[in-house]
Amino acid sequence: MSRGRVYIVGAGPGDPALLTVKALDLLGRADVVIYDRLVNPEILDLAKRSARRVYAGKRVGERGVQDRINAEMVSETEKGRIVVRLKGGDPLIFGRGGEEAEFLTRNKIEYEIVPGVSSVTAGPAYAGIPLTHRVHSSSVMIITGQSSRSGSRKATDWKSIVGAADTVVIMMGAAASSKIGQELIKAGLSADTSVAAIEWATTKRQRTRLFRLGVMAEGKVLVRPPSVIVVGSVASLAERLDWFRIKGKSTLKILSPARGLDGQ
Amino acid sequence: MSRGRVYIVGAGPGDPALLTVKALDLLGRADVVIYDRLVNPEILDLAKRSARRVYAGKRVGERGVQDRINAEMVSETEKGRIVVRLKGGDPLIFGRGGEEAEFLTRNKIEYEIVPGVSSVTAGPAYAGIPLTHRVHSSSVMIITGQSSRSGSRKATDWKSIVGAADTVVIMMGAAASSKIGQELIKAGLSADTSVAAIEWATTKRQRTRLFRLGVMAEGKVLVRPPSVIVVGSVASLAERLDWFRIKGKSTLKILSPARGLDGQ
Repeated sequence: MSRGRVYIVGAGPGDPALLTVKALDLLGRADVVIYDRLVNPEILDLAKRSARRVYAGKRVGERGVQDRINAEMVSETEKGRIVVRLKGGDPLIFGRGGEEAEFLTRNKIEYEIVPGVSSVTAGPAYAGIPLTHRVHSSSVMIITGQSSRSGSRKATDWKSIVGAADTVVIMMGAAASSKIGQELIKAGLSADTSVAAIEWATTKRQRTRLFRLGVMAEGKVLVRPPSVIVVGSVASLAERLDWFRIKGKSTLKILSPARGLDGQ
Repeated sequence: MSRGRVYIVGAGPGDPALLTVKALDLLGRADVVIYDRLVNPEILDLAKRSARRVYAGKRVGERGVQDRINAEMVSETEKGRIVVRLKGGDPLIFGRGGEEAEFLTRNKIEYEIVPGVSSVTAGPAYAGIPLTHRVHSSSVMIITGQSSRSGSRKATDWKSIVGAADTVVIMMGAAASSKIGQELIKAGLSADTSVAAIEWATTKRQRTRLFRLGVMAEGKVLVRPPSVIVVGSVASLAERLDWFRIKGKSTLKILSPARGLDGQ
């Protein structure tokens, strides 16, 4: 019997319409779908009925959980099955897909990687925020608020981040949002800088709030996970470009209005 | 007659299978498709036969070209038509989609933005390079090599970039690759740092090369557009995780082997 194959697949940011054609096709063919916590249940419903669905658990990356996922991939491919390893957003952006690919390589299991639309870009897009813009931004920095759980090769250098990037996107930053705001201000960013927090981006639960960095630093805005946080003058464009509607309604709430480019 | 609507759509990085379900659906419904230079012709073929196809021209963003695109969007939506404004990758990442959204807002034309899989992430993914990785990288910087054509609010601060990011992704950097290599070394990055250049990512023409930053700085490697350049130790993972095959063949050529993590 021939060995199976694993597809490490990005499920996109939430909206099932943002699934790739390849991901949709693979969901229809997979014998087993091992899915992460934040994958939209509507997307899981697109897998064939007979597919075995395996919840990867809350803390992917932790030893026991990852071992269990790895064991599943080994045993299912040994049985010749097609395994879809489904991850929220893009599988290689804070998704630990790279580490699973390394495991598969070591174990000589065939695999493919299917990139997905990342929440890093789609969250802001659904809030009317272009991460790059001829006037506002030609450099984007992507960081995680959970630096303790992700082993950077260097400590977070906030001064450099402020010096390097026109726009900073913070993933998994809800819990640390006030701390992050303080660090960015300490590093030289104006407390007036526009910030957008997009909760449950691209889903029916999307909620967008626009405020100033100082407000976030003072802990006056409660950012709940899952959120994409955008810091930089592009965030203020949400005021004008907010196009996404849920039942005809905007998802945007302006806590502090933008001052326009000069005031940023 | 009701007015039409514009969809600002990301065509993804090249592989038609990486188109989103929404983009594919819209291509089947659009009366007019205004497409950029780097959109794969195979993707254009997915539009309905009767759709009017309009080539946006080489230098999108330049006055005359952008004016012509804008005029098309106005006149076609006035006729009640569905317009797909098709851009390579994601429409808001170096795609000037934000500026077109601003134009549509000003002109009270209804629009939606359809994020696409960006070459920023998909190019590396097809070369076996995760941009984030528990051991190698928890911060990613995205810049363009054509800073003269994109109005950043600040000059490129290479020292800060090196200080801020574990991984740097350079888009449209082919022409300036040697200059960029020199700047990064001058800013403190080791000449031994791994670099991957991925040409025509995710297409049948993909070509991946792995080398050291010093080699690029010396102009000893010819990087041709369109290329995604990845600088950082994650690039070295391509040696092990190179999964993508064209007619059974790897697209990877190793010009200088990685030294592993310690030597990066």
